[in-house]
Amino acid sequence: MNVLFAGVLARGPVAEAVGERAWLQAMLDFEAGLARAQAAVGLISAQDAEAIAAAARADRFDAAAIGAAAAGGGNPAQPLVKALTAAVADDRARGQVHRGATSQDVVDTAAMLVSRIALDLILVDLRAAADAAAALARSHRDTPMAARTLLQQAVPTTFGLKAAGWMVALDAADDALVAARGRLAVQLGGAAGTLASLGTDGPAVVRELARLLGLAEPLLPWHTDRTRIAELAGALGEAAGAIAKPARDVILLSQTEIGEVREAAGGGSSTMPHKQNPVASISALACARRAPALAGALLGSMDHEHERAAGAWHAEWAPLTDLLVAVGSAASWLRACLSGLEADVERMRTNLDATGGLVLAERVSTELGRALGRGVAHEAIERAAQEAGTFGRPFGEVLAEDEAVREHVDAAQIEALLDPTGYLGSASAFVDRALEAHRARGSRA
Amino acid sequence: MNVLFAGVLARGPVAEAVGERAWLQAMLDFEAGLARAQAAVGLISAQDAEAIAAAARADRFDAAAIGAAAAGGGNPAQPLVKALTAAVADDRARGQVHRGATSQDVVDTAAMLVSRIALDLILVDLRAAADAAAALARSHRDTPMAARTLLQQAVPTTFGLKAAGWMVALDAADDALVAARGRLAVQLGGAAGTLASLGTDGPAVVRELARLLGLAEPLLPWHTDRTRIAELAGALGEAAGAIAKPARDVILLSQTEIGEVREAAGGGSSTMPHKQNPVASISALACARRAPALAGALLGSMDHEHERAAGAWHAEWAPLTDLLVAVGSAASWLRACLSGLEADVERMRTNLDATGGLVLAERVSTELGRALGRGVAHEAIERAAQEAGTFGRPFGEVLAEDEAVREHVDAAQIEALLDPTGYLGSASAFVDRALEAHRARGSRA
Amino acid sequence: MNVLFAGVLARGPVAEAVGERAWLQAMLDFEAGLARAQAAVGLISAQDAEAIAAAARADRFDAAAIGAAAAGGGNPAQPLVKALTAAVADDRARGQVHRGATSQDVVDTAAMLVSRIALDLILVDLRAAADAAAALARSHRDTPMAARTLLQQAVPTTFGLKAAGWMVALDAADDALVAARGRLAVQLGGAAGTLASLGTDGPAVVRELARLLGLAEPLLPWHTDRTRIAELAGALGEAAGAIAKPARDVILLSQTEIGEVREAAGGGSSTMPHKQNPVASISALACARRAPALAGALLGSMDHEHERAAGAWHAEWAPLTDLLVAVGSAASWLRACLSGLEADVERMRTNLDATGGLVLAERVSTELGRALGRGVAHEAIERAAQEAGTFGRPFGEVLAEDEAVREHVDAAQIEALLDPTGYLGSASAFVDRALEAHRARGSRA
Amino acid sequence: MNVLFAGVLARGPVAEAVGERAWLQAMLDFEAGLARAQAAVGLISAQDAEAIAAAARADRFDAAAIGAAAAGGGNPAQPLVKALTAAVADDRARGQVHRGATSQDVVDTAAMLVSRIALDLILVDLRAAADAAAALARSHRDTPMAARTLLQQAVPTTFGLKAAGWMVALDAADDALVAARGRLAVQLGGAAGTLASLGTDGPAVVRELARLLGLAEPLLPWHTDRTRIAELAGALGEAAGAIAKPARDVILLSQTEIGEVREAAGGGSSTMPHKQNPVASISALACARRAPALAGALLGSMDHEHERAAGAWHAEWAPLTDLLVAVGSAASWLRACLSGLEADVERMRTNLDATGGLVLAERVSTELGRALGRGVAHEAIERAAQEAGTFGRPFGEVLAEDEAVREHVDAAQIEALLDPTGYLGSASAFVDRALEAHRARGSRA
Repeated sequence: MNVLFAGVLARGPVAEAVGERAWLQAMLDFEAGLARAQAAVGLISAQDAEAIAAAARADRFDAAAIGAAAAGGGNPAQPLVKALTAAVADDRARGQVHRGATSQDVVDTAAMLVSRIALDLILVDLRAAADAAAALARSHRDTPMAARTLLQQAVPTTFGLKAAGWMVALDAADDALVAARGRLAVQLGGAAGTLASLGTDGPAVVRELARLLGLAEPLLPWHTDRTRIAELAGALGEAAGAIAKPARDVILLSQTEIGEVREAAGGGSSTMPHKQNPVASISALACARRAPALAGALLGSMDHEHERAAGAWHAEWAPLTDLLVAVGSAASWLRACLSGLEADVERMRTNLDATGGLVLAERVSTELGRALGRGVAHEAIERAAQEAGTFGRPFGEVLAEDEAVREHVDAAQIEALLDPTGYLGSASAFVDRALEAHRARGSRA
Repeated sequence: MNVLFAGVLARGPVAEAVGERAWLQAMLDFEAGLARAQAAVGLISAQDAEAIAAAARADRFDAAAIGAAAAGGGNPAQPLVKALTAAVADDRARGQVHRGATSQDVVDTAAMLVSRIALDLILVDLRAAADAAAALARSHRDTPMAARTLLQQAVPTTFGLKAAGWMVALDAADDALVAARGRLAVQLGGAAGTLASLGTDGPAVVRELARLLGLAEPLLPWHTDRTRIAELAGALGEAAGAIAKPARDVILLSQTEIGEVREAAGGGSSTMPHKQNPVASISALACARRAPALAGALLGSMDHEHERAAGAWHAEWAPLTDLLVAVGSAASWLRACLSGLEADVERMRTNLDATGGLVLAERVSTELGRALGRGVAHEAIERAAQEAGTFGRPFGEVLAEDEAVREHVDAAQIEALLDPTGYLGSASAFVDRALEAHRARGSRA
Repeated sequence: MNVLFAGVLARGPVAEAVGERAWLQAMLDFEAGLARAQAAVGLISAQDAEAIAAAARADRFDAAAIGAAAAGGGNPAQPLVKALTAAVADDRARGQVHRGATSQDVVDTAAMLVSRIALDLILVDLRAAADAAAALARSHRDTPMAARTLLQQAVPTTFGLKAAGWMVALDAADDALVAARGRLAVQLGGAAGTLASLGTDGPAVVRELARLLGLAEPLLPWHTDRTRIAELAGALGEAAGAIAKPARDVILLSQTEIGEVREAAGGGSSTMPHKQNPVASISALACARRAPALAGALLGSMDHEHERAAGAWHAEWAPLTDLLVAVGSAASWLRACLSGLEADVERMRTNLDATGGLVLAERVSTELGRALGRGVAHEAIERAAQEAGTFGRPFGEVLAEDEAVREHVDAAQIEALLDPTGYLGSASAFVDRALEAHRARGSRA
Repeated sequence: MNVLFAGVLARGPVAEAVGERAWLQAMLDFEAGLARAQAAVGLISAQDAEAIAAAARADRFDAAAIGAAAAGGGNPAQPLVKALTAAVADDRARGQVHRGATSQDVVDTAAMLVSRIALDLILVDLRAAADAAAALARSHRDTPMAARTLLQQAVPTTFGLKAAGWMVALDAADDALVAARGRLAVQLGGAAGTLASLGTDGPAVVRELARLLGLAEPLLPWHTDRTRIAELAGALGEAAGAIAKPARDVILLSQTEIGEVREAAGGGSSTMPHKQNPVASISALACARRAPALAGALLGSMDHEHERAAGAWHAEWAPLTDLLVAVGSAASWLRACLSGLEADVERMRTNLDATGGLVLAERVSTELGRALGRGVAHEAIERAAQEAGTFGRPFGEVLAEDEAVREHVDAAQIEALLDPTGYLGSASAFVDRALEAHRARGSRA
């Protein structure tokens, strides 16, 4: 990521966690783990394994040089293995470096290690964002505001229910990420997945390596089975969407003409001092928007040819890394956005009342329908709505003048019907049970 | 789907299962279920509910007329509700149609019902394809063939291991689809998610409706929480990739110059009677290739504004339907491909031997390395490989002439080293345990 | 397209123009043209050519049967050629059907013919939409409204400039579509691009066929050169984006709280009679949102293997058709949206004044900056902006009380500075020259 | 780009040309140009303009600090302008920095400048690749090889025609990139596109700035008209596809079992010394595969809200940069691949003959058809093809034994018919005219 854009597009700790140093260390961790696993199984000596592990420290290698040399063989594992071999002090141990493994084993396992760390970091921010949404849902459980469908005021809802909706989706994305995390597995197959050069010890080495690296042990070497990558892509894409939704809502609610929420730290403008741009939600949305294409790219690269893909494999590296950064940054921005979000309860009420009760039309329609019949009631309300709109008069006032209406309800009853707080249905009940479920997720965050 | 392309791109039962009639019935099932759920809760009479349910049969409605009328309000639920209301015989019951619901409730729940049926059909073909891969893995557990990395012969493997790899990925996709299926939930929120017009009975109606339709009961109305759609998209994308991989392999193995497998029903050419095109794998790949963009489109449409999206919602309908068709067709084609796939075991062996033993270079290198040291061994082998390549002589023969080599191994030993069946590592062990795991998935298919 | 969704997602004439009947006729037009071109070159008799052409009428063939039979060979051209051959009355002529051609020649040329017709239809609606935008730009050349950056009011602009911006982008998309249309070329290469079965007459036949079908003559058979498809995809994607922008703006301007524009035919709600949903812009946006993924799918299918792709070719058919429908529908919806769009000039002014002059802060800042220095002026304005915001007082009033300010400008001057019509810069000049350029495009539409 | 992957995924000069230093300088070039343009128009003094221009040197600024500070306002232009202002020596000049401009003006114009340089570099490599393809087409104008459709041998073609096909597509992509380059325009609109703070001088400043920066002058400020970005995306996507096609072909032709081409610098394997991986074509394909998703992301970000998008704008920065790098790297790899590509003419012939004449079946079919009738001939050939396949006998030999056949053609005639060099149709003529057209493109490269 170009550093000029990093402040916006690479916020939070994930960018570094998937950076070159992290990848380098992950590849070295694979080599160290491989040596130790072979020692555990008895293929090499513990001494040799430790000599290799001792050399496997990222700060001893030149990432740029390794990257440049990668052009020769088509991947960075080849030059790294060469450099690591050279760095091993002991002659005999040197001969045991990378034994039985192939380049893709190194890069694929490193991808899993890097992804695991990144997921952990993403989950921290995602959970904090969900907790912030939960806090808003709790505080504003009964704060009425206009629900807007197709961006038109529809009926009343509560800010609590809106925030609870954000929270529930974030929690679902959390579950998806945790599931994908659980599938992250070690890759060790050797030249073509048979582990031939390890004789019959292959499976035992794989198992031990998985244990050492804290990754799952796969049923088979998965070098050409990219379902793990696909699940990661799908879960990250889902998380991005779950983040984009509240970000979009905050941007819309922050509009000058609506003004129902305000980010704690709005971005200013040098020449327009009045502007309080919702920078966090805008940036969250910008980061999240990167995800679908990147996830699609990973899904589109699953048809790996035979025992190693000629291009489809290499085409995964950048989108996987970018996707982790995009979602991590989006989560970090959303956390910032929601943590300090200020709701303007008065403005919510003012906007809700702006149509003079029109947002209660559904309710009035239902009530009058019982007395007048659905059709007649609907017509009366449509008439009143139109007149209210045309002459800029309060809907309730116009309605109260309608003869057909007055036969059945009086002005006081109309006023009561037009009270939005009386028409919130199950909003609070929904909020309560969503919060309960969120709490029940426990101390995971 | 244009019927001209349907034979290739819309194979199997899924296309019909997500067609207009199916959608229509699913929307009507929602309305019937809604009426019955309200009757169960006591909001309307059982008689009214049954009157509505009796009218809710797709064959009584004109899908094209409803679709055309959808242009007016922006979705097909509005005109359908109107038509259904007109079709209900009883006056009073007529007034109870669609009570408390909104258009999105109808369309979203119908999407879940349609998806469930489609998933079930997809799973049948996917499992049959996995079983066919399992059968190949079993039959060819010990059939040696050349493993190819970057499309170059690398070392020996078995056709069984290759087929087991296909199977394991298909099984993983199966799990992902089953998980996504489990998340399919009823949607009922009313105008904006509060179910205000149902008073306090909303949650009870939702629960009963979920039970009646056989869908999950969501924590909250999920009209603007699209994580379910995202999980469906991700799982379908994963399945497409898991299908594309064996399809790609079969196409490559069917090449004239390789000829290691042959589809049972190859496609002919009118003017080139010798051609046996692997139509099933080609079509499977073509269908599967549609998936990533469609999945990406769904992931990219998650930022629904406020309580109903102005465009993002509508933008889901086509890709969701298309994605189900694409993956269903791909699964059906793959099943056809793998079920009758003939492996040419002799040709596999001929190709494996074509390099005169070069595919065993890794093994020879390791063995000689013990005696000569890694570097010296590597050089000797590189020398022999080059000479074998240049003069078109068998690698083993050239190697046996190398003085450095002859000091340590004799011709018989070289011949033994060059026997591919002796260098298959854990291939068979891997196949066995993958088959065991596949069997353990039980009689689900 | 599922007819239930067609009213929203397949508006206008394009859906039919790319439907099965149209594709069928286009494939038959290829065969008729091919026969006539060969007659013109002297390879077959004119009589035979006419016998073939006479049979090549879509209404004589069963599209569904051909589509179903396509499963056998992997494309619809094979069964169509068979059916056409059977339909040719004359025995000798029958032997000349499809002579020298291959299936891909039929399908690729038909794709070009279908695309040409679709593009022509799309261009009609796109130009009408651009003309409608031009009319708005003309009528509202000097109508002040708030410019909004990041959805916050920024400075004044005119509705004319906004509409002119829509128009200019639509015109650019028009140019791109016209350029892509010009590249549509006949495809005729025979079994593998050499036209071997036509001896040395191949190029002459191609030229004549191109002339007959009104398509460009390509330098080479382009069966595996998909740059034409890519250009079509790119241009259609661009058009979708140019449509999405005004659709998005109309949706935002139609918000209840903003209300600056209103679509002529707003969509209603049965239970919420006050709602006037901007259905046309919402539907335009929904259709346009389908485009990027479809265009990406086409760009991602360009790596056709050797002389005919095993999957990538087949994977083009659905997205190409869908993309034409999506963009055609979006254009049709946008035309409907803009043609009858009503601007509420008073509401625009009310909203512009709602901040009590804050949208002129940039201007005041610049003016005061000359007298007070940039920094001091900026601080004074920030102070006033904050106080105005906090106490809900008009910005101008607060500003006029600031001592630092009063030393340099009096209340009348401040009032003048806060007149938005005096701070529109080059808005009108820009509108004029954009309209002039639009007019200069001539009578093309 | 992670440097570890840069050797593969960021080859050639483009990565640096779109790196942070390049972007920084481009933003500074905008500011210097803006000052000089205002001086030219008389808005500021030439002295002030030069003082600003003197400070506008990238090496004087800290990109990382600016990037970090970008988080505050949501883009890097704000902190850069602040830093530039501080860097201007003269007090009065300092007050003229960035006058009349807004952040998006800086970033959008910089994007155009950076893209122009990148396109120029991409075009150099793309043209060199096309020239290399042309050289292959020329050298192998008459080299027969098997044409493969659906990866099955079909009929003979020439390697020259295949290479000419690569060249023609690369030339088409070249044209598209040149067209997109011509649309790159300066962006200057001020706070919201009216250039209000420049009074009536706006258009003159824009024109002069365009002249100074060597960019096109747009009809209107294009801050929310993203058609230029879309055209760039489309053209780059097309170029990626045109690169992917030959890369895919080279990978397939390099397969061990086919071996018809060999890259000059094949990548080796440490343990499998015989491997000669076609690293350049694999890497070209890997880079090219990144393009469709990135292009789709840009097309999907065109619906910018009002006068500045809340997210869609920011979402362009990374994919635009990445797309330029991906296509530049792909072009560089393809150039390397094609420049040194060795064709194994003998192997081509061997493969062509491997089916014993079956690839001439179309020809024999046509010839025999004249004598025997199409149906009878087809049957005879199918019979012979099947027997040849089943018993592994040469097709010609079997055919010569067929009684029906022998009545009309003798063995010598069959042999002649089975000579592939006699059935190349217009291959050479096509190559000649494609090369002529390529030459006529002139000395542009």
